[in-house]
Amino acid sequence: MSLNSFGHLFRFTTWGESHGPAIGAVVDGCPPGIALSEADLQPWLDKRRPGTSRFTTQRREPDQVCILSGVFEGRTTGTPISLMIENADQRSKDYSDVAKAYRPGHADYAYDAKYGFRDYRGGGRSSARETASRVAAGGVARLVIPSVRIRGWVEAIGGDGIDYAAFDDAAIDANPFFCPDPAAALRWEAAVDAARKAGSSLGAVIACEAVGVPAGWGAPLYAKLDAELAHACMGINAVKGVEIGDGFAAAALTGEANADAMRPGDADGPQFLANHAGGIAGGIATGQPIRVRVAFKPTSSILTPVETITRDGAATDLATKGRHDPCVGIRGVPVVEAMVALVLADQFLLHRGQCG
Amino acid sequence: MSLNSFGHLFRFTTWGESHGPAIGAVVDGCPPGIALSEADLQPWLDKRRPGTSRFTTQRREPDQVCILSGVFEGRTTGTPISLMIENADQRSKDYSDVAKAYRPGHADYAYDAKYGFRDYRGGGRSSARETASRVAAGGVARLVIPSVRIRGWVEAIGGDGIDYAAFDDAAIDANPFFCPDPAAALRWEAAVDAARKAGSSLGAVIACEAVGVPAGWGAPLYAKLDAELAHACMGINAVKGVEIGDGFAAAALTGEANADAMRPGDADGPQFLANHAGGIAGGIATGQPIRVRVAFKPTSSILTPVETITRDGAATDLATKGRHDPCVGIRGVPVVEAMVALVLADQFLLHRGQCG
Amino acid sequence: MSLNSFGHLFRFTTWGESHGPAIGAVVDGCPPGIALSEADLQPWLDKRRPGTSRFTTQRREPDQVCILSGVFEGRTTGTPISLMIENADQRSKDYSDVAKAYRPGHADYAYDAKYGFRDYRGGGRSSARETASRVAAGGVARLVIPSVRIRGWVEAIGGDGIDYAAFDDAAIDANPFFCPDPAAALRWEAAVDAARKAGSSLGAVIACEAVGVPAGWGAPLYAKLDAELAHACMGINAVKGVEIGDGFAAAALTGEANADAMRPGDADGPQFLANHAGGIAGGIATGQPIRVRVAFKPTSSILTPVETITRDGAATDLATKGRHDPCVGIRGVPVVEAMVALVLADQFLLHRGQCG
Amino acid sequence: MSLNSFGHLFRFTTWGESHGPAIGAVVDGCPPGIALSEADLQPWLDKRRPGTSRFTTQRREPDQVCILSGVFEGRTTGTPISLMIENADQRSKDYSDVAKAYRPGHADYAYDAKYGFRDYRGGGRSSARETASRVAAGGVARLVIPSVRIRGWVEAIGGDGIDYAAFDDAAIDANPFFCPDPAAALRWEAAVDAARKAGSSLGAVIACEAVGVPAGWGAPLYAKLDAELAHACMGINAVKGVEIGDGFAAAALTGEANADAMRPGDADGPQFLANHAGGIAGGIATGQPIRVRVAFKPTSSILTPVETITRDGAATDLATKGRHDPCVGIRGVPVVEAMVALVLADQFLLHRGQCG
Repeated sequence: MSLNSFGHLFRFTTWGESHGPAIGAVVDGCPPGIALSEADLQPWLDKRRPGTSRFTTQRREPDQVCILSGVFEGRTTGTPISLMIENADQRSKDYSDVAKAYRPGHADYAYDAKYGFRDYRGGGRSSARETASRVAAGGVARLVIPSVRIRGWVEAIGGDGIDYAAFDDAAIDANPFFCPDPAAALRWEAAVDAARKAGSSLGAVIACEAVGVPAGWGAPLYAKLDAELAHACMGINAVKGVEIGDGFAAAALTGEANADAMRPGDADGPQFLANHAGGIAGGIATGQPIRVRVAFKPTSSILTPVETITRDGAATDLATKGRHDPCVGIRGVPVVEAMVALVLADQFLLHRGQCG
Repeated sequence: MSLNSFGHLFRFTTWGESHGPAIGAVVDGCPPGIALSEADLQPWLDKRRPGTSRFTTQRREPDQVCILSGVFEGRTTGTPISLMIENADQRSKDYSDVAKAYRPGHADYAYDAKYGFRDYRGGGRSSARETASRVAAGGVARLVIPSVRIRGWVEAIGGDGIDYAAFDDAAIDANPFFCPDPAAALRWEAAVDAARKAGSSLGAVIACEAVGVPAGWGAPLYAKLDAELAHACMGINAVKGVEIGDGFAAAALTGEANADAMRPGDADGPQFLANHAGGIAGGIATGQPIRVRVAFKPTSSILTPVETITRDGAATDLATKGRHDPCVGIRGVPVVEAMVALVLADQFLLHRGQCG
Repeated sequence: MSLNSFGHLFRFTTWGESHGPAIGAVVDGCPPGIALSEADLQPWLDKRRPGTSRFTTQRREPDQVCILSGVFEGRTTGTPISLMIENADQRSKDYSDVAKAYRPGHADYAYDAKYGFRDYRGGGRSSARETASRVAAGGVARLVIPSVRIRGWVEAIGGDGIDYAAFDDAAIDANPFFCPDPAAALRWEAAVDAARKAGSSLGAVIACEAVGVPAGWGAPLYAKLDAELAHACMGINAVKGVEIGDGFAAAALTGEANADAMRPGDADGPQFLANHAGGIAGGIATGQPIRVRVAFKPTSSILTPVETITRDGAATDLATKGRHDPCVGIRGVPVVEAMVALVLADQFLLHRGQCG
Repeated sequence: MSLNSFGHLFRFTTWGESHGPAIGAVVDGCPPGIALSEADLQPWLDKRRPGTSRFTTQRREPDQVCILSGVFEGRTTGTPISLMIENADQRSKDYSDVAKAYRPGHADYAYDAKYGFRDYRGGGRSSARETASRVAAGGVARLVIPSVRIRGWVEAIGGDGIDYAAFDDAAIDANPFFCPDPAAALRWEAAVDAARKAGSSLGAVIACEAVGVPAGWGAPLYAKLDAELAHACMGINAVKGVEIGDGFAAAALTGEANADAMRPGDADGPQFLANHAGGIAGGIATGQPIRVRVAFKPTSSILTPVETITRDGAATDLATKGRHDPCVGIRGVPVVEAMVALVLADQFLLHRGQCG
């Protein structure tokens, strides 16, 4: 995992800034012979694409992915797959505010401290726009592990959570919030509308589940499945927390309450009586569903002016104008799914490499 | 980060099992010329060492670290530092129970599923004993970044948290729980005793702070400081959750409430009015204290029998006898500190390498 | 060094096939603040560009490099630099011969054995066309180490070597062979013409020197400067041998004859009385000029029919038609220079990272 | 490949200095279930062990390897294998000469330039003693690829080469030079004796062949099999050149002369009419024997005084006393074999990981 690459054997490298001509990813180590075309990747990009509802940024990007290499006669060749997405809607706005002052909570100050200067247009490299590259790469990863079903949803917005008793898988794609609880979706509609109108923003919690991961994937001790998932998810823009299985709630349990007892099962493995562990023990998959929860902070790009300083160190107030997500966590769902897919595809190849 | 190595430029590799002759770590990439002897590392190992109170496992290990290479005339040479710790108290107990059946919540079943068989003595490679190697390596890491102060404590045991208004730095090392709140320490004494006597176990939440990290450390986008910390901490035995700054609580905030406003500061950087971000923005340190929270599940090794299966797939009940921590999170404090030190030393070298 | 990436801190990843829409490289880890535009890279690409004389392939490629990311207001930002070169002259020839049979000496059979099938158009990923990406990346590397002067030349073609007594630095760029000995250049003109007309091909030896590398660069023991150079050069298409300093000739010397004696020098280091070592001792630069020699085999693409087999295992004869270099080693000069630059830029950052 | 680690999936890390208490290697990524004990590794170490004839250094080292982890009940567990070899014969000689002045041709000056100081006892980390760790690790690698037969020999000493017409496989282990030509062995005996008595040293060329490598191993483009072998061999102490197949001789051939024509074969692959390529095309094994040649310079440790400088920059003459190999290349045979085994084991796992 070196700077802008992620993964060991199934490895991707991303490049590109919010307002450059394009962004992209190079996917390396993909097994040969897998059927792949742009049509296989576009649905995931469409899911993440901005401008599809009033609850996401109004930047209009077609996000058409283009495969530049690594595929021949419709199948992967085993050589690097170069994916490119053009930046279409780079609004020629005036960035002088952001160029001169640091948006609180943004990476502006940190990038300047690190590199001495920064591409301030739309956040440059630190923009969440880069996650489109991850989603495209994640689309390839899904094809490497076709028997694994990866599914994410929003569990809470602004502290208002869903009722798991009302969980309806079919509802997830039927509202603009990837919300499995239709009643919660209605409440969120009001809340996000209110935040948007108030020039504010809201945080969110995303849950993601991977079903069909065979027992044995995972590479202890320093490429553990749970550690890799934590790295992958914590590295997503705006993420501040990651849990596997019961997560922080497990810290309040007793050993008996937290035990995932086992009974004789079938060819697919033992029968587990619970899944507090979220499908991972000792950094290795147990065969149960992998469960991850991810906390997204509210985006720092708000219309409400906040105290800050200029590049020269002078005091100022800054309101972040422009087009922004009132709740960036919503579009985090396809990104979390993609990162989970990328980790699992990598772990599949690592396991096959070492253990045959 | 390949299987049993961690880090990019400051990189360590660990080896060893719970009941083999020894465990150890090879620390590679350490800058030359740093004064180093076993006496610099031993205090951290002593902090993690078992058998020092009735609240930890009664396994007696002196945990004497030995430096086998990489130091000449008292200073690091820039070549690999080999650290070895002998396993002294490998009790010749009968492991036939564990050899034949899977302890629920343990890595037993997953290791068998992955590798076809396992070293079942004391958990083998999956034992928390391996974390002694991390602590030793972390001691070297601290010397690489001497101006950074890393400090961890227990924040909650079994769901019972400290009162931050009563936070007393001096108290942390004055009780067997690394507890900064003396009143909480008294309550925990009763709770852990009760759990121990009941053959049960308790989870815990650890907090860790690193003060003095310069703005600019961190390597976006796939070696982000927060992602590396998440990887480092989630990879510790029994950890199920990691938060940076406000973590999951941030997901319930509005953008205004979560903003870390800035005012003109001094030569050390701007004055921040809050630290919701935990000292990291865009994966790069802001100069504020780095704040991490880590959730440890209750250890699965409990005397209460739990339903499980044998290697042959038959139903059985298993009680984990032997010497175990009633609350493994307590000894997690020096381990979390070590991992934070290891990540920061690595990020320091990465930053110096790329940015001079 | 993972599959299609090279380097540790200054790291590049290439993608693309001979007859896809484009090829490219992502350069990661470049220090920020370096002035960079396409005009800085194009001269090196022009040096490697085919079709500039009758002694290279007649494929016409403008090889215009485009920078898609990582540069803002004319300077590198420290984020990945995406370089793309369009494939302009993909002649729509009939590849049915190559699709069905294996060209002896080519990678055709090996790719099929590895991946199950291959992109046979122009050699696909195994084509020397990919080296354009290396040359572009190498152009960035040169800017990272501006005080190092890297210079390559052809030392022999078809076994006919230059007279080092006649070495004329100015001559190197004054003939189509990068030949520092004008008399040899005249002989090579006749020899390469003859080979071209006979449908044959010739091998070549390239020499490359890097002056100005400070003593201390190099990362023993498994990222030694000489080992990295050997990896970098042996990985170039058609290369079969690499020497550092006296190379194989050193194996015939005595210890006294091979000694590089030292005398007191100046601020730049000691005065060396010889440079048998080629500027590297123990994997670390000594401050003397780095010297590498690289052997290129004659290209296997010849018009003379050779016995081979079809994909189905049947016997056949194959003559490789199309546009090919009669001496592929000639255009190897800018490629070797690029690889040397890429290794040195990486070693510079590694050294700065570990040793400050 | 980071500093002191080598390999991707089958990866080893070495540590230790010539005069420290021990040296060792951690082998990571080894498949589980392989029968392994010290007795499997010792024969390779014995082959490299010093002091077995008057033609090698008289340092007496038993070189007993000890397995500290990663093996349970006689089989590898898939976890790191820690190998340790004690340094037994660290003669307490006076190193003040070497501490104060730089031995020409040695790494002394370069290490000081890099790290600011060095462990001067016996060359410290730069000593060829470290290669014992590689040989031990290589012994594990051989067990991972049991169907591959790796065999090295000395091809020339001091410029005097063997007669391949007289090649006798059985002779290789029947003389102290790993010489397949008994007549040459007799000549070398005289030559090495003369060099030893004269306080001089001789270079050597080693050849190594790996038979049974399946077509398809190799990971283009930046983990090519030939590039990895070049890295592995050029990184051995005293090596200055590496060739694959015909190497530099190929540069003097025409395309027709260099072609490895193919005819229909059997289940094991096609019949090749020649092996100029040394079993590798496009960085991938063709199924033919892999052939590598490696040039060792004469050791710089000679009794003849050579001009040099002190650490303070003053002129002096230095004769390297102590126990040294008159021809270090001889003991290079088991080291080259080990490095070839390590590369091939790694490529086997990489291939299985990506291509199944």
